[in-house]
Amino acid sequence: MTTPIRVGIVGYGNLGRGAEVALTRCPDMQLVGIFSRRDPSTVKPLNPEVPVHLLSALDGMRDTIDVLLLCGGSKSDLPEQAPKLARHFNTVDSYDTHNRIPGYFEAVNTAAREGDRLAVISVGWDPGLFSLYRLFGEAVLPEGETYTFWGKGLSQGHSDAVRRVPGVKAGVQYTLPSEAAMERARSGSLPTLTTREKHTRECHVVLEVGADPKEVERAIVTMPDYFADYDTTVHFISEEALVRDHSAMPHGGFVIRSGRSGDGNSQVMESSLKLQSNPEFTASVLVAYARAAVRLHRQGERGARSVLDIAPGLLSPKSAAQLRKELL
Amino acid sequence: MTTPIRVGIVGYGNLGRGAEVALTRCPDMQLVGIFSRRDPSTVKPLNPEVPVHLLSALDGMRDTIDVLLLCGGSKSDLPEQAPKLARHFNTVDSYDTHNRIPGYFEAVNTAAREGDRLAVISVGWDPGLFSLYRLFGEAVLPEGETYTFWGKGLSQGHSDAVRRVPGVKAGVQYTLPSEAAMERARSGSLPTLTTREKHTRECHVVLEVGADPKEVERAIVTMPDYFADYDTTVHFISEEALVRDHSAMPHGGFVIRSGRSGDGNSQVMESSLKLQSNPEFTASVLVAYARAAVRLHRQGERGARSVLDIAPGLLSPKSAAQLRKELL
Repeated sequence: MTTPIRVGIVGYGNLGRGAEVALTRCPDMQLVGIFSRRDPSTVKPLNPEVPVHLLSALDGMRDTIDVLLLCGGSKSDLPEQAPKLARHFNTVDSYDTHNRIPGYFEAVNTAAREGDRLAVISVGWDPGLFSLYRLFGEAVLPEGETYTFWGKGLSQGHSDAVRRVPGVKAGVQYTLPSEAAMERARSGSLPTLTTREKHTRECHVVLEVGADPKEVERAIVTMPDYFADYDTTVHFISEEALVRDHSAMPHGGFVIRSGRSGDGNSQVMESSLKLQSNPEFTASVLVAYARAAVRLHRQGERGARSVLDIAPGLLSPKSAAQLRKELL
Repeated sequence: MTTPIRVGIVGYGNLGRGAEVALTRCPDMQLVGIFSRRDPSTVKPLNPEVPVHLLSALDGMRDTIDVLLLCGGSKSDLPEQAPKLARHFNTVDSYDTHNRIPGYFEAVNTAAREGDRLAVISVGWDPGLFSLYRLFGEAVLPEGETYTFWGKGLSQGHSDAVRRVPGVKAGVQYTLPSEAAMERARSGSLPTLTTREKHTRECHVVLEVGADPKEVERAIVTMPDYFADYDTTVHFISEEALVRDHSAMPHGGFVIRSGRSGDGNSQVMESSLKLQSNPEFTASVLVAYARAAVRLHRQGERGARSVLDIAPGLLSPKSAAQLRKELL
């Protein structure tokens, strides 16, 4: 057995915890430490033997870590951390602010090249695996349409939006794909589907004492960007029910490519995910791409990459010959 | 616009015809000729302006073709042709005799390296896209099981086996995935599924005059390797019905990865294809990988590759920056 890949986790929220446990399923990788901005004594890893350090401790560990999993958020953590860290470490992150990815890529690419490192950005399932599914679809079937549906799943951004409404004490939001719209996407008829047709939104809300449910409902369903373009249902529930029934973080979705070949034969490619834990799955994808990042760096590659740039075989601990034998 | 990739098609059966029409949907590629062992005057391309040559004419065209699509069969054509041609051309093929792929890879790899060429082997959907789906599944969810189901689709090998039975004048065989088995695979319970449980087989047979249907049916359903391990149904039909209802070549299938993360959360990844024309789809995959083969060769790569070794972005005519903007 060769020396394990030495991995550090930066940021210890749901994603960092998911990464910790995903690494335990990878005998070729070894978690060397968790790095946090918080006082290390307040960070409790699932495995109490894992060392916890302040983020600043990374300065002295450039030669003892092969790759960092950046498990912070896309809003403020990653845009600041990733370019800094990619100058000194190989990194993998799950940056997911779709329309800002080109600029983010440039910033991380410059840093990684200057520091002779390799950084894989925007890994996870969307962006990530879903990007790959979309790519295979349009590359193989250039005549056609790609449809992405999300859910059923808990949406963090929309749940936050619900919780900001005056009168809301707590709440969650689920995005649901429309079965009817999915059937039309699969039909080969290449329909144009509007935003409202593709998904519905379902909110489970705990009211503040004295809040007016009618007013809260109106504020939610008319909220621009988040809810106004969708059919939104609001359910009022007790705090106990929220904790009991809505603490899991399921998610998933579908990428459907409906294309035509020959004289018009219908060809449908579909990929889907049904996840009981969104952060654990995203972390599992990060870990697989961390393996690829280290291998690419050892091969002499430098700079930023996305899932689109990485040969799939590099994700597996198995050799190329073994993969050919088992998977082709 | 840069110079189009110059493509030759070797072999003009269903797959070669599919490749011809797939290339018409790729403005960055140009079909320069069809190459056949048959007398060129007997080969009729869909577009009559496409030049047809004897295979031997390739000797004089090493500098005018960027990549050859090898559209012959896996049984005898490809094992003989691919190593010879990969010495002088970049090639892409759909070699699909699964248990012989490692040896085939070595033979083509040696030839391509000696000739300074790049060859992509075993492209299509299985092996091919399904190999990728299996790889993503096991790399992301190392704890779990992968299930592959085929169909509903026309199986060429099994149809040939039916037609060899004495008393059978003509016939086709469809492979059908078992819905019940697929539901179990998706359930997260990680079932062990036997061959018989996963698929059923359905034969539509035209009898020779005077043949005994009971005897033919018995010979089919008890045939070892092909049918004995399955629940097989035999329907006797007229020659007219065979031509009318069973001339299309639909196929498809499902790859389901059922895995666990964290403390046992179920995570299910599923990809499927529903194809009205199997050869046209396979040809479309070949064409996308032909683009990648030429790019890899231009980057200085040499030798044999499979889909596992190729960064997905290379399949698309779009630039890396455009793909990041549109697909991530």
